[in-house]
Amino acid sequence: MPALDEIETLIKAVSKLPGLGPRSARRLVLDLLKKKNELMLPLAKMMIDVAGKIKICKECGNLDAGEICGICGDDRRDIHTLCVVEDVADVWAIERTGLYKGLYHVLGGTLSAIDGRSPESLGIERLHNRVLEKKIEEIILATNATVEGQATAHYISEVLKTAGLRITRLSQGVPIGGELDYLDEGTLGAALKLRQVV
Amino acid sequence: MPALDEIETLIKAVSKLPGLGPRSARRLVLDLLKKKNELMLPLAKMMIDVAGKIKICKECGNLDAGEICGICGDDRRDIHTLCVVEDVADVWAIERTGLYKGLYHVLGGTLSAIDGRSPESLGIERLHNRVLEKKIEEIILATNATVEGQATAHYISEVLKTAGLRITRLSQGVPIGGELDYLDEGTLGAALKLRQVV
Repeated sequence: MPALDEIETLIKAVSKLPGLGPRSARRLVLDLLKKKNELMLPLAKMMIDVAGKIKICKECGNLDAGEICGICGDDRRDIHTLCVVEDVADVWAIERTGLYKGLYHVLGGTLSAIDGRSPESLGIERLHNRVLEKKIEEIILATNATVEGQATAHYISEVLKTAGLRITRLSQGVPIGGELDYLDEGTLGAALKLRQVV
Repeated sequence: MPALDEIETLIKAVSKLPGLGPRSARRLVLDLLKKKNELMLPLAKMMIDVAGKIKICKECGNLDAGEICGICGDDRRDIHTLCVVEDVADVWAIERTGLYKGLYHVLGGTLSAIDGRSPESLGIERLHNRVLEKKIEEIILATNATVEGQATAHYISEVLKTAGLRITRLSQGVPIGGELDYLDEGTLGAALKLRQVV
């Protein structure tokens, strides 16, 4: 055990971050301590700097420096297409493809009766209003391909069905570089069912 | 990709910490951003606080708040027994057992011709002097059971062989809770060779 209580407290705080446990937190904190001037202090200052700048976009729920995020504020983007995602990480992932030019709507989770996440808490009504007000022509349901993600997508498509817009979802199939032998039956089945003419 | 350059920089810095890669760093930073007031800022302040307090013990190489660490400064400890470890994490690990009452000597690594770590850079001479000056009666070589760790222990035992003290090393054998079937041959062989009368 570390001698200094503050180190123990720091390890405990770090061990609660996603993907870290007590052992990896100890290793991480020890590494930081060994490089306190080159790594620990600059990292801490960076965190304070970013925490001070970051805001949740009022329009879409993305994280950025302004009240309105860089994507919502970019007038080269197609304002009539809306991609609905669960999380800000999904915005980052889709932006990395460089292929999507529309706007986003970050739900902040999925519907879940068990975890008490209702349509109200996810702000589905706000999404509905946004779709109507902004004259959205296509909504892409890009929730995760999990049971909750699919259920949430289905719920949203039901809500928006009368809004008279195109509702699409991401295609399912074999991942690029994926070996059929290692794929689960569900994915392979979907890839077969949705097979395309070459 | 995140919109704000500073987030990208922060993710890059975090991804270089031990045990983290680009993906886990993104997840971690996003989690921090979502809880910036409850988690990100307090964590950053804790890091700055700890970095300001921590010092390397002049005596043994442990990390603590003073010039001399809490273990070296504790007069209830047996000052004639010295446990040689590779890293501060090993001090923490042995302290967690609550069974060791002597002092430590942190090498800060192992001998390694490939990585250019010589007896000089590990301060083996300093260890030798400490052993003589402080009238150490037993030295416990608690380096890791790796090739480098064992080679380092062997080198130290050769250096100290004429100093007229007891030189011991940690026992090797079956870990508590370990299943024989899952053990490597080396460990099982050592456990057999060092078997004890019940």
